[in-house]
Amino acid sequence: MSVGSVSEVTLADVRDAHDRIRAHIRRTPVLTSRAIDELVGARLAFKCESFQRGGSFKIRGALNAVLSLDERSAMRGVATHSSGNFGAALAIAAGVRGVPAYIVVPTNAPRVKRAAIEGYGGIVTECAPNVPAREAMLAAVVAKTGAQFVHPYDDARIVAGQATATVELLEDAPDLEQIWVPVGGGGLASGAAVAARALAPRVAVVAAEPSGADDAFRSLASGRIEPMANPATIADGLRTPLGRINFAILSSQGVTVALASEAAIVRATRLFFERMKLVVEPSGAVPLAALIEAPKSRRARRIGVLVSGGNVDLDALAALFASGGAT
Amino acid sequence: MSVGSVSEVTLADVRDAHDRIRAHIRRTPVLTSRAIDELVGARLAFKCESFQRGGSFKIRGALNAVLSLDERSAMRGVATHSSGNFGAALAIAAGVRGVPAYIVVPTNAPRVKRAAIEGYGGIVTECAPNVPAREAMLAAVVAKTGAQFVHPYDDARIVAGQATATVELLEDAPDLEQIWVPVGGGGLASGAAVAARALAPRVAVVAAEPSGADDAFRSLASGRIEPMANPATIADGLRTPLGRINFAILSSQGVTVALASEAAIVRATRLFFERMKLVVEPSGAVPLAALIEAPKSRRARRIGVLVSGGNVDLDALAALFASGGAT
Repeated sequence: MSVGSVSEVTLADVRDAHDRIRAHIRRTPVLTSRAIDELVGARLAFKCESFQRGGSFKIRGALNAVLSLDERSAMRGVATHSSGNFGAALAIAAGVRGVPAYIVVPTNAPRVKRAAIEGYGGIVTECAPNVPAREAMLAAVVAKTGAQFVHPYDDARIVAGQATATVELLEDAPDLEQIWVPVGGGGLASGAAVAARALAPRVAVVAAEPSGADDAFRSLASGRIEPMANPATIADGLRTPLGRINFAILSSQGVTVALASEAAIVRATRLFFERMKLVVEPSGAVPLAALIEAPKSRRARRIGVLVSGGNVDLDALAALFASGGAT
Repeated sequence: MSVGSVSEVTLADVRDAHDRIRAHIRRTPVLTSRAIDELVGARLAFKCESFQRGGSFKIRGALNAVLSLDERSAMRGVATHSSGNFGAALAIAAGVRGVPAYIVVPTNAPRVKRAAIEGYGGIVTECAPNVPAREAMLAAVVAKTGAQFVHPYDDARIVAGQATATVELLEDAPDLEQIWVPVGGGGLASGAAVAARALAPRVAVVAAEPSGADDAFRSLASGRIEPMANPATIADGLRTPLGRINFAILSSQGVTVALASEAAIVRATRLFFERMKLVVEPSGAVPLAALIEAPKSRRARRIGVLVSGGNVDLDALAALFASGGAT
């Protein structure tokens, strides 16, 4: 498996990743809801990565990257840039191996996210909130510490790790016809494509994306990575641009994209809360939102849904619900 | 099994109840949290009845009662009084059997609860919000319809049904030393006592109760049912007075009561939200609240916790969190 070589993210890589990380992750439950099934007109199986360690699926890829380092590299630690779930996940993963994690965080990141990273033992360095400043700071941290950079999603080790969520979903819900998965950078979605192609080739993967951050939709339509200028969506985890490896996998596997409006994302987040008693962050509700808005012809009868995370505080959720999207 | 004869709620009754209701209920998951384990200083296994049909464990007893009626009685339907979860549960259970459910609801019950009962097909009759008015209205409904009255908890069929939650918990977490369970009317708690005594006699059952509604605490101390004058607690599901059958089981099985302050109930509700991404109603958080406040000598190392329900709306939760109990 070499970073950047798409065709080499194989089922064997995914199996190896699963063996490597299994003892350190949760086997998250697959839950169902009659009320939501009736609303959507399909039988849905929700794989709840909101219950995963760190509150999202990100720990799977982070652990696979950290645990597959050789001893000499690992000693010097790992580094990444993140204002969200991946920073916390890499800190947890580094803690499992007992090595340092250096996380470059923009100065405008929410205090609560920074506190979470530090709570898991991550060493935070701040940078100005723009890409050149972030890259300069990351380069400085890596030069100083010798830590290995781990990209949050544009990395074959991350893709193999995130694919394990789909492996578990396919084991627990063996009769699926489709899997709907959120797409931002594309780590979870490309992992789903790799796992489904290998284990259940008749299961179609649909990547769900906010209309206000539709670079995956445009990229898969044009056949090349389209830039994302000013993402405008409450689904903060999906504002990131699509990665190169991730794009290559999604396009080679024939993954299609379904879009979700902001109103539908609010409504779906609220459905999780009210009907399923689940705290789901807006990004994690995007597949359900897209399902609600999709034409009937787009939906199979038996659908797996990857619920990517639950890191949202009550105040944010209350503001979101007040903003609209009554169920 | 005769109503009122405590010693006759046997393991066989519980097994029969489980066989009767199994196809109609969810097998709710048992979840864990490292963060909460560290906080409490014990390993906790949370049986999440918040995910049960209707949003609480109440459907178990309701289904057992409805499905054990003979055909002739069942045809005329069932009736109860409820301003909360049991009314909805009985409406669902009656729907499963295809018979009517008549629910007497006080005029001051939340609109959302009444709407839920009607959403499940229950036929609502309103009464003034006091015990004489409620009993008169219920008697009138029963006289008119011939429906069978099903008490929300003071009924051996209900106890046997609620006991099935503990049977499942003991199956999924076989190494428990204690089970902590909320106590209001006592249906869930007395069911837990029956199941634990029969299946795992070394597992102690601790009933957790709000300090502001401590009639079970006082009743088990004095050896007779003590009245509850003015219950004052946010745990609205636990304001009901302890039932006779329930009291007799709890006292004969040596169940002890642990109290929880209002601040601890808020804090526990918040811990479920923030650390476990679970929507839990305040009543369902009372065992965790009592665990947090209990002296170390009171807690075993390995504890099962029955999370009774998740029927709370976001506005109520936001008001609750704003009222205090920061984690």
